[in-house]
Amino acid sequence: MKIVIALGGNAIIKKGEKQNYSNLINNIKKTCKNIVPIIKNNSVLITHGNGSEIGYLAIQNEIAKLKVPIMPLDVLGAESQALIGYIFEEQLRNSLRENKINNSVATLITQTLVNKNDNAFKNPTKPIGPFYNKKQALQLRKKGFHVIEDAGRGYRRVVPSPLPLKIIESDIIKDLINKKIIVIAAGGGGIPVYQENNLLKGVEAVIDKDLASQVLANSIKANLLLILTGVDYVYLNYLKKNQKTIHKMTVKLAQEYLKEGHFLEGSMKPKIQAAINFIKNGGKKVIITNPNNVMKALNNKSGTLIIK
Amino acid sequence: MKIVIALGGNAIIKKGEKQNYSNLINNIKKTCKNIVPIIKNNSVLITHGNGSEIGYLAIQNEIAKLKVPIMPLDVLGAESQALIGYIFEEQLRNSLRENKINNSVATLITQTLVNKNDNAFKNPTKPIGPFYNKKQALQLRKKGFHVIEDAGRGYRRVVPSPLPLKIIESDIIKDLINKKIIVIAAGGGGIPVYQENNLLKGVEAVIDKDLASQVLANSIKANLLLILTGVDYVYLNYLKKNQKTIHKMTVKLAQEYLKEGHFLEGSMKPKIQAAINFIKNGGKKVIITNPNNVMKALNNKSGTLIIK
Repeated sequence: MKIVIALGGNAIIKKGEKQNYSNLINNIKKTCKNIVPIIKNNSVLITHGNGSEIGYLAIQNEIAKLKVPIMPLDVLGAESQALIGYIFEEQLRNSLRENKINNSVATLITQTLVNKNDNAFKNPTKPIGPFYNKKQALQLRKKGFHVIEDAGRGYRRVVPSPLPLKIIESDIIKDLINKKIIVIAAGGGGIPVYQENNLLKGVEAVIDKDLASQVLANSIKANLLLILTGVDYVYLNYLKKNQKTIHKMTVKLAQEYLKEGHFLEGSMKPKIQAAINFIKNGGKKVIITNPNNVMKALNNKSGTLIIK
Repeated sequence: MKIVIALGGNAIIKKGEKQNYSNLINNIKKTCKNIVPIIKNNSVLITHGNGSEIGYLAIQNEIAKLKVPIMPLDVLGAESQALIGYIFEEQLRNSLRENKINNSVATLITQTLVNKNDNAFKNPTKPIGPFYNKKQALQLRKKGFHVIEDAGRGYRRVVPSPLPLKIIESDIIKDLINKKIIVIAAGGGGIPVYQENNLLKGVEAVIDKDLASQVLANSIKANLLLILTGVDYVYLNYLKKNQKTIHKMTVKLAQEYLKEGHFLEGSMKPKIQAAINFIKNGGKKVIITNPNNVMKALNNKSGTLIIK
């Protein structure tokens, strides 16, 4: 089976945890242990979030800007793909060796095509990087940046989050996957680029990693999109008294729940949307669960299954 | 023909030039224009230096360390591969489109195997990152870092530069090249990793990019190793009154010149060594020239040719 595993940020660094080298190594090592059993019998593409990492790179750029020119967000996106991808490839190779599995691993720097006229560019909503005080915020606004007030915590830059249209390297990725090479790609949803006069140009934005994973999953004709996040199941009325576990739902039901506003923006909502898109574009099934439950979920004993 | 193009740092950023986004784009765009004619009729692998970029990343890490945990040099090496690789892939895709060439481009995060017992680890020689004052230098030394005094400019960390043994991803790279996909790989000589109990582990070091390019060129069975640097030819008595252009030399002659100390450490010397190694390990020929002269050199009208 051809599987796309979309890893949430907490497969790399836990919320509130210090993002240092040893924590990265330890978390990624654990994540690899969880997913290696899947690799044994399937072709696997791994995508991952980068929210924490690109934020930290933006903070480094800001603090060091008098000594080192600031790089735009698309370049930082690329850097975050390498930061995570390198450690992931290394730990995955080790985990495979320990389990006597011979598949090779490739980490690709990946660009994602977006529409220059995507409404997101008129209405940036995604907070990123350091907090600023009021004076700094006003200076940034003068430079043309979008800066919002983040209740009680200061000011913060917001950037557009346009829809992913196509993964630029998808043909290469498909070839590699079909040769049973494990590919790590589209980290952080891919580096956003738009097309103008037939040429590609990087743009300061971030792309939802679940939606980008879905676009890539469809283009490589994956059978299963496996979205790994912080919860074992998708829930209705999450963390409320009347919380209800969803074991299985059709695309139609998922669309109804989405309409009823059950899923949190920037969290479960894009995952459900990615699930719906994947199946509508020819995918067979989607599972949403956490990394610990992944093998149980593949055996229908955990996780939320979304089907046609 | 299967060609490995090893690009020097000045194909990306010129000495003394400010390393900002627009300079990177402009230089890389020019470099792409120079090498696109080669791609038309050949299979091409591109490697590149990262000296300036990894240095800047180390400076950012140092300045921002109270807010963002410092990443070790192997992770910064990965980041520099993505920083350069992303921009390069984008500009190369554009240049190919303008020339109606349909090859695709893949940028791989690349690890290079080194020997844990390489003598370089006992004797670090490669200066990297920011300058420190005496007090800071002493503190770093207490932490176990090697710090040297750089005449008149302050103190600087030095790191080992072990020999490259193998490019971890070379099988994948070979497959891609054989399918006429242009691969950007082994940036900065690759991320140094060593093997212990059959497991890979990143290590704080930097690898000479010409030697790493040669190892990769041999393992993908390239015919030609094309080393692009700041000069049009290799010279004897470079910049002296009795300077002499080398148009062509055999491996044997190159070894003699090397012995006589004609070539500068960390500059022309590793290029000549890479040329010798490449041919001794089955490669056909090596050309050393600058990016502007590359097509002339391929037609035997410029550049230094090294053959068996």
